[in-house]
Amino acid sequence: MKQVKAYGTKAINAPLEELTISRRSLRPSDVEFEVLYCGICHSDLHSIKGDFGEPFLPLVPGHEILGRVTAIGADVKDFQVGELVGVGCIVGSCGHCDSCHEGLEQFCDEGVTFSFNSADKISGGQTFGGFSKTYVCEDKYVLHMPAFDNLPMAAPLLCAGITVYSPLRHWQAGPGKHIGVLGIGGLGHLAVRIAKAMGAEVTVFTTSPSKVNDAKRLGADHAILSSDTDAMKQMRGKIDFIIDTVSAGHDVNSYLNLLRHDGSVVVVGLPNEPLQVAAYAVVRGRHSLSGSNIGGIAETQEMLDFCYKHGIVAEGEVLPISRVNEALDRLERGDIRYRFVLDLKEL
Amino acid sequence: MKQVKAYGTKAINAPLEELTISRRSLRPSDVEFEVLYCGICHSDLHSIKGDFGEPFLPLVPGHEILGRVTAIGADVKDFQVGELVGVGCIVGSCGHCDSCHEGLEQFCDEGVTFSFNSADKISGGQTFGGFSKTYVCEDKYVLHMPAFDNLPMAAPLLCAGITVYSPLRHWQAGPGKHIGVLGIGGLGHLAVRIAKAMGAEVTVFTTSPSKVNDAKRLGADHAILSSDTDAMKQMRGKIDFIIDTVSAGHDVNSYLNLLRHDGSVVVVGLPNEPLQVAAYAVVRGRHSLSGSNIGGIAETQEMLDFCYKHGIVAEGEVLPISRVNEALDRLERGDIRYRFVLDLKEL
Repeated sequence: MKQVKAYGTKAINAPLEELTISRRSLRPSDVEFEVLYCGICHSDLHSIKGDFGEPFLPLVPGHEILGRVTAIGADVKDFQVGELVGVGCIVGSCGHCDSCHEGLEQFCDEGVTFSFNSADKISGGQTFGGFSKTYVCEDKYVLHMPAFDNLPMAAPLLCAGITVYSPLRHWQAGPGKHIGVLGIGGLGHLAVRIAKAMGAEVTVFTTSPSKVNDAKRLGADHAILSSDTDAMKQMRGKIDFIIDTVSAGHDVNSYLNLLRHDGSVVVVGLPNEPLQVAAYAVVRGRHSLSGSNIGGIAETQEMLDFCYKHGIVAEGEVLPISRVNEALDRLERGDIRYRFVLDLKEL
Repeated sequence: MKQVKAYGTKAINAPLEELTISRRSLRPSDVEFEVLYCGICHSDLHSIKGDFGEPFLPLVPGHEILGRVTAIGADVKDFQVGELVGVGCIVGSCGHCDSCHEGLEQFCDEGVTFSFNSADKISGGQTFGGFSKTYVCEDKYVLHMPAFDNLPMAAPLLCAGITVYSPLRHWQAGPGKHIGVLGIGGLGHLAVRIAKAMGAEVTVFTTSPSKVNDAKRLGADHAILSSDTDAMKQMRGKIDFIIDTVSAGHDVNSYLNLLRHDGSVVVVGLPNEPLQVAAYAVVRGRHSLSGSNIGGIAETQEMLDFCYKHGIVAEGEVLPISRVNEALDRLERGDIRYRFVLDLKEL
């Protein structure tokens, strides 16, 4: 085991502080890398606050982990020392259930090992995330990171990017399709860019007047204030599917009503309160309220290559790891357009 | 116009009584038929009680209308006097929107004219349903009724039958698929029979211990009491999709959790209260809460032919039209297995 510096917390909802964690020694199929950048996602904040239940303590967050390989195990063939790599949410799955065979590791029957705050089936204890100097991961969950011009802002693709790319692919965004994006934040702004790169027509729905122009700057064809009842009415029956990125409670029925027949509102945020679905809103037009959860490993690699080809990264601010608490506070207040990335070089 | 005897009501939530209505004179594309049998559906009851909003008055219910042709208009080619025919929920649609072109008249952009309690775009006033001596309908909404051995019990196929057949087809019930049927009533008992005839494995979920054996008698492979937490747990991740026929409020999340990845709970009942959907229940496994609403005209004909081939009709009781109020009372109390059909010959 190696002792490694990290930022984490020993108590629920307490500020993060520098601490020391253990990383396992390399096994034959492991890749070790120095963490260069790590994105901050709302799930990190939820875990710190205990919103997803009691976390493992100490808790080291971070699951948009980008770095450079420092060592490889004896059996590793696909990675080389010095190469840029990434790790997202998934660092373990059973490998033999139907979902794993179909490349849908996120739905593994035996449960996924997440890159932080999961029971660690290999080393025991819990997994520690990317707010740390190094990361060690089995090679099949490691991604090849293309040489993005803006490398730090590619880190958020590893969770936010795949979370919107996967449903855009599954529900077939592309030319001739009209896609709605509900909410413009860390997920929504990437959904706009990716859906446009796929060739779809994109309409953003937002509750913030200040985000209407921003949505257009990001590439949306239309941006509608959800309080504008006339504009909402004109969209009735016009949208093929809507990526719903809102993580607070909201009225999904008014968006279900905008769908063409057989359309879906696809939830990718995780509101704490149940969503209230009127039976009419799904029965009429054979609509669906669906969900989608990150994506599999092969699809995440596909997404990274797609974003590199189309020059897509997140938009936001890079802060040194020592300012992580400031970033978390601002994220909680919604004071970021659109994503924080931590620079780990201080550690 | 012709004066015709019918059973209806002149006030919301009042008993039905015999009254006289007008049926239009035959237009060139019209079919007139003598009503032999008419099923009673929960929607009839809802309309009488004003649950769907203020009904047109007088209200003549009935939308599972089976009869024998008495006259045809000059342009009618597909029907002959003396032939058995049926009319279900739909007697008008725009004919030129995308949904109509795709045979999904039930989702017509300009709105469907229903066989009762709709604004009548042809004759003015409202449409009067099948609790009446005759019916007049444009030929393209009239169905050829196969010569079922148990003719009265074929009437409920015209609404209950298509309501479950359409989603079973759309979500591809068949060999190798495991289908859930939630609730055993007018819709559910037909869903079991049709899904079995399609070759699927069928599990019924019910809250009534008395219906567990009945579900198996109807052909279900398995029947589970939804209060049996062990049996429910064993079904987790095993069901491809579930037809949810329950028209009262209920917890859909415990059924979403039973689905394989990409599975749907398909609502065909119309609970008054919104359904509470936990984001996790759809996000995990890319599940959907979907809806389905009757079916188009061509699909209804396909369903009738399918049911005839497989010997499927509804199960229930035939009562003379003079006992309609008794039937409605018992339907409201749930005191019928599973469907009432009215015999109109007294009129």
